[in-house]
Amino acid sequence: MVAAAKRSPEDPPGGSRAAHGLLSHRLGATGEQLLACLGLVAFLAGTLPDLPATYEGALTAVCVAVALLFALLYLLRLRHAPARLNWAMTPAALIDLVAAAPVPLAFALGASPWTARLFGIFWALKLIRLNPAFGLFARVLHNERQPLMGVTAVFVVVVLFAATAAFLAERRVQPEAFDSVPAALWWAVATITTTGYGDRVPATFAGRLLAGAVMVSGIGLFALWAGILASGFSQELRRREFLESWDLVVRLPLFRDLGAPALSEIARLLKVHHARADAVVVRQGQPGDSMYFVAEGEVEVRRGDRRVRLAAGQFFGEMALIAGGPRNATVVALVQTRLLRLDVIDFRGLAARQPELLRVIEAENARRSAHTAE
Amino acid sequence: MVAAAKRSPEDPPGGSRAAHGLLSHRLGATGEQLLACLGLVAFLAGTLPDLPATYEGALTAVCVAVALLFALLYLLRLRHAPARLNWAMTPAALIDLVAAAPVPLAFALGASPWTARLFGIFWALKLIRLNPAFGLFARVLHNERQPLMGVTAVFVVVVLFAATAAFLAERRVQPEAFDSVPAALWWAVATITTTGYGDRVPATFAGRLLAGAVMVSGIGLFALWAGILASGFSQELRRREFLESWDLVVRLPLFRDLGAPALSEIARLLKVHHARADAVVVRQGQPGDSMYFVAEGEVEVRRGDRRVRLAAGQFFGEMALIAGGPRNATVVALVQTRLLRLDVIDFRGLAARQPELLRVIEAENARRSAHTAE
Amino acid sequence: MVAAAKRSPEDPPGGSRAAHGLLSHRLGATGEQLLACLGLVAFLAGTLPDLPATYEGALTAVCVAVALLFALLYLLRLRHAPARLNWAMTPAALIDLVAAAPVPLAFALGASPWTARLFGIFWALKLIRLNPAFGLFARVLHNERQPLMGVTAVFVVVVLFAATAAFLAERRVQPEAFDSVPAALWWAVATITTTGYGDRVPATFAGRLLAGAVMVSGIGLFALWAGILASGFSQELRRREFLESWDLVVRLPLFRDLGAPALSEIARLLKVHHARADAVVVRQGQPGDSMYFVAEGEVEVRRGDRRVRLAAGQFFGEMALIAGGPRNATVVALVQTRLLRLDVIDFRGLAARQPELLRVIEAENARRSAHTAE
Amino acid sequence: MVAAAKRSPEDPPGGSRAAHGLLSHRLGATGEQLLACLGLVAFLAGTLPDLPATYEGALTAVCVAVALLFALLYLLRLRHAPARLNWAMTPAALIDLVAAAPVPLAFALGASPWTARLFGIFWALKLIRLNPAFGLFARVLHNERQPLMGVTAVFVVVVLFAATAAFLAERRVQPEAFDSVPAALWWAVATITTTGYGDRVPATFAGRLLAGAVMVSGIGLFALWAGILASGFSQELRRREFLESWDLVVRLPLFRDLGAPALSEIARLLKVHHARADAVVVRQGQPGDSMYFVAEGEVEVRRGDRRVRLAAGQFFGEMALIAGGPRNATVVALVQTRLLRLDVIDFRGLAARQPELLRVIEAENARRSAHTAE
Repeated sequence: MVAAAKRSPEDPPGGSRAAHGLLSHRLGATGEQLLACLGLVAFLAGTLPDLPATYEGALTAVCVAVALLFALLYLLRLRHAPARLNWAMTPAALIDLVAAAPVPLAFALGASPWTARLFGIFWALKLIRLNPAFGLFARVLHNERQPLMGVTAVFVVVVLFAATAAFLAERRVQPEAFDSVPAALWWAVATITTTGYGDRVPATFAGRLLAGAVMVSGIGLFALWAGILASGFSQELRRREFLESWDLVVRLPLFRDLGAPALSEIARLLKVHHARADAVVVRQGQPGDSMYFVAEGEVEVRRGDRRVRLAAGQFFGEMALIAGGPRNATVVALVQTRLLRLDVIDFRGLAARQPELLRVIEAENARRSAHTAE
Repeated sequence: MVAAAKRSPEDPPGGSRAAHGLLSHRLGATGEQLLACLGLVAFLAGTLPDLPATYEGALTAVCVAVALLFALLYLLRLRHAPARLNWAMTPAALIDLVAAAPVPLAFALGASPWTARLFGIFWALKLIRLNPAFGLFARVLHNERQPLMGVTAVFVVVVLFAATAAFLAERRVQPEAFDSVPAALWWAVATITTTGYGDRVPATFAGRLLAGAVMVSGIGLFALWAGILASGFSQELRRREFLESWDLVVRLPLFRDLGAPALSEIARLLKVHHARADAVVVRQGQPGDSMYFVAEGEVEVRRGDRRVRLAAGQFFGEMALIAGGPRNATVVALVQTRLLRLDVIDFRGLAARQPELLRVIEAENARRSAHTAE
Repeated sequence: MVAAAKRSPEDPPGGSRAAHGLLSHRLGATGEQLLACLGLVAFLAGTLPDLPATYEGALTAVCVAVALLFALLYLLRLRHAPARLNWAMTPAALIDLVAAAPVPLAFALGASPWTARLFGIFWALKLIRLNPAFGLFARVLHNERQPLMGVTAVFVVVVLFAATAAFLAERRVQPEAFDSVPAALWWAVATITTTGYGDRVPATFAGRLLAGAVMVSGIGLFALWAGILASGFSQELRRREFLESWDLVVRLPLFRDLGAPALSEIARLLKVHHARADAVVVRQGQPGDSMYFVAEGEVEVRRGDRRVRLAAGQFFGEMALIAGGPRNATVVALVQTRLLRLDVIDFRGLAARQPELLRVIEAENARRSAHTAE
Repeated sequence: MVAAAKRSPEDPPGGSRAAHGLLSHRLGATGEQLLACLGLVAFLAGTLPDLPATYEGALTAVCVAVALLFALLYLLRLRHAPARLNWAMTPAALIDLVAAAPVPLAFALGASPWTARLFGIFWALKLIRLNPAFGLFARVLHNERQPLMGVTAVFVVVVLFAATAAFLAERRVQPEAFDSVPAALWWAVATITTTGYGDRVPATFAGRLLAGAVMVSGIGLFALWAGILASGFSQELRRREFLESWDLVVRLPLFRDLGAPALSEIARLLKVHHARADAVVVRQGQPGDSMYFVAEGEVEVRRGDRRVRLAAGQFFGEMALIAGGPRNATVVALVQTRLLRLDVIDFRGLAARQPELLRVIEAENARRSAHTAE
């Protein structure tokens, strides 16, 4: 953000920048989510019946405060974006706008506090907007839209036929519950999703046979749906992991001399692991089942009184894989660190197929030991 | 269709042909689905109780209109099919017939408008008939019919035993709810599918133990069912994608010099991507995670004021994969276009295993640059 | 069976043998299942309340007849088994015994017809015993018993804690519904399986929060369960297919000259396809997406007036794979036939990796064409 | 434990050691679980209303006994642990403490027997603590926490929006059931999980449309959840199996001369199989679909009167794989034995890719036959 602001020719004044830094950086993603939760609790409590006036006033105050903060945050972000219109058109910015605008707008248009607070529901979008998994779902739904639509079409047709059949079977016996096909549709949807409210239940023999078939076919349809989503999801997840890991792998000097096939295989096997500052990555005495490459940040290896710092490009934990046995040191992240984790199962396969990699690790190991010994 | 009509020796007269073109081509798949939806809404509304006579007349009129249009469409299609009997026996034509015939037939046989409108439910089949995923489901069900039947048999046996046990456990305490094994079957089906209407609930200790076991075993059976359908589905989907992509890959001059093993691997990795006219395929400035080969149709590369047209056999988007970084141009489909999409994860693996392909892409790239420079 | 009886030194007399042949071979698996269904319907109808005495007499007669036939079948099978004790200990024979014995035993012990008919429920086991998928499920459950038991243990613990918490939260407000932890357990099981009868519903805020958590955690547990069963199932299915196809592949003279690695790969790709007598395997004019090897039985290729018979070891349908386009002939199974099906997606990959196979197919093709031309 | 106690400098006195051995070894994992079940039954029965005083006294006595045994077990384990503080901090020890402490503590703090018995619910943790699958689930949840949290966030947002919409749609018609958004939330959660208690059911057209959408979207969310858990689970399971099998494979002298790539592939294919003492591993006459390597323990091959003992490093069952046909001998585990099982499907692929392995097996076979013949 700061780097971006430097590039912008019309640099905003310092006061706004400090506020922006305060709200956007200090608050952070977690703070923004907590603020949204606070607002949502106020919104939820505000709809309870027979609320004393003093409580209601307090809830309105909370809602106004949350709304103002979110609106301010949006305006500051817009102001400090290098290309304002482009930023405003990004999905994240649009969600920010839809979350921030309704409550102030409602107050501005003269709505009652009770009504204005209701628009606080849009703050729930903040929980999604700041979630890294959000883009993932959107992409999976987009990739798999064709078969998903196909199952949905079959679902609609089955529900329509089931409702018509139930209407014909039940309307003599229960004229009030199955008085039309739309009324039978309500029963059919609650039955095929196996929700089964029980407010409308077939009473005839034919209707019950039909209901059994609807329940069973519903399971089948949802099994198809689940299969499509699950397979699309796991494929997309693998793709993301590869991309993230590839970006880090090609930057590691350790792998510089390996060819493209080896790099491609390594990137496929390494998993990116985020460690916060002061997080313990491996603990002495625990069984070791993976080695780590430091991609970004810095870690400290602690063994008794000895402390060794490892920066980006170095690795640790390989002894447990080569020799077996528990970890012989504790490793702690000193700053926010990105590690590449190589699992023992993949290490063994990789070492067999890419003997070069084993050599690189042993050489680096020797170099580091020599360096440490000096 | 037109090409087919040319081959037919007994060419139908021009008026019918114009009507056929109008209904079958102008209307299109989406139009036919919308028409079916209109008819279905009229059918649904027509079953509501206490409908004023004027409304009912209007709904009957809509149903008659939809029925006539579908009947006409079927007759025109039949007339213009090159081999009429063969066409009439195809599943698509049979579904068209089952959708189109009932309402006119009901009116012809002197049914009341209320009864005749009921047959409009068959228009729902149009939603499936025109859905490309329909054949997919039919094939998966056929492929996996043996294990599916096996789970169903186990399901039937479990339900029968559960119903008998519930009958024995509950008939003393609730003689009206569990008065026979068929009555207990109704409870067992609603319980094993976890629908749980709540109209019949065991009251004895033994009955409740049994109900718990039935619920849990139901989950297990449906998990098996879901697993069978999901794995069969993903296998069939992969097969289809390969077939579609293979058909396009072997026709691309770009791949002419590659051997069969390379072609087979490329076809397995490329995903067919349909773009409508004027659809944006890649947008300048967005992160690039795939390259595209034009298989059919034409696209335009737009970068500032420069516009380059790419026809079938050419490709774009490779720069983002080779150099990383965001897209440096926007690409728009000029007509209905079929593209083959190569994902970055597959590109890197493929380039490593098939160095020939990299050479082909670089050569073509050079050739195209030279051509553009002239 | 007949071959087995020949080997037996103490050959049973001809009358019993004819009866055995009649019941065991003429009746067949489908007949036995239909007989079981008939018996089950009589058993189900016999439990209906207020049944007229004449109906009841008829149902008892049906049950007696079915029971006698099944008992006779068991005794004949036992008599004609080459090693009687061994046969009697097989799971299939034990299921036969459990299905056949209860009803005659009940009558023998002087039970009322109503009670004796109830034991007809055991005929349901015949539906499983004769199902080829039965052994599959038993094996999957056995293979995956450890993780399945693990999820079940977690399930039990979650349900116990949820019931205790609900008891504590609700017993003040609803002392009659949540009067003990066992009563709350009934609610917890119906909730965690998402059955939701609605006979016991939490009314306090804490109880509802708890109920929400129970519902959601139930989904998670069942997702784990489904994942275990589904993956175990697909693994076992693949194993069975390989075994069946391997048995046929090694017997085909066509593959005699291929080495073990090629055979192993071919067996993995070929799918066994059962065709009844007179079944159409491929139909002229339809799109071709697989070739077939005849493993057992005989098929006839029909193209216009020409008819060619292919016996075990020969193949067909390869033209559609090599040249593309629709099938140029119809192929019909003359007798019960086992075919090995090679899908186009696998054919292309296989031809690339095993050029030997392509040569074998082309050579055989040439040989057959020459033979036909004579 | 005994070996560990030897290493400890401050060896506890003999009486405590005998008690420790008795409780910790004789009782065993199964005994501990049975004891926990006994305690849980007493706890459950103790909450039933209107319990006679004598019964209550007996239940209290059972609970006190179970509580004392578990407390004693914890103290003995703590005393005999080589590093007491380290042991007390392990998850297993913490669970032991949480299970053992509450009931004695409640009695010590003067709670009534009814209240003290309630804390027996914590004994349920013993069922998890001793379950080998427990660590597996914990690890899967940890690995997949990011996408799981993502789906949960979407779930929360959908539920909040659905509840708000239902509140707005229904509060006019059903002011008592949908009197606030929190009340509507209760309906939304029961609906999206398809539990469907039926205590609150939308009555308006808009509310029912919404309910249908909520049910369907709930299925989609849970399908995603199931997909994430299932794929994470199968990946982790494969990893564990590899680790366990690798540990055994590298110790087998049989494989000493094979290179790392072969070892890695063998470890991936072999499945660890635990056999209790006297368990039959293969039975003469049954179809053979796998061979076994003895990794730990001893088995006896029984064929007629001949008995051959096989110790760690030897194998059996290979004849059925090489020659086909049923098992020609019965093999029984003499002691608790760990076997490595090689499935026929993997044996054939492995023999083709690793001809060395076939040679090793044949050589060992010859050596063993010669040895037996002497």
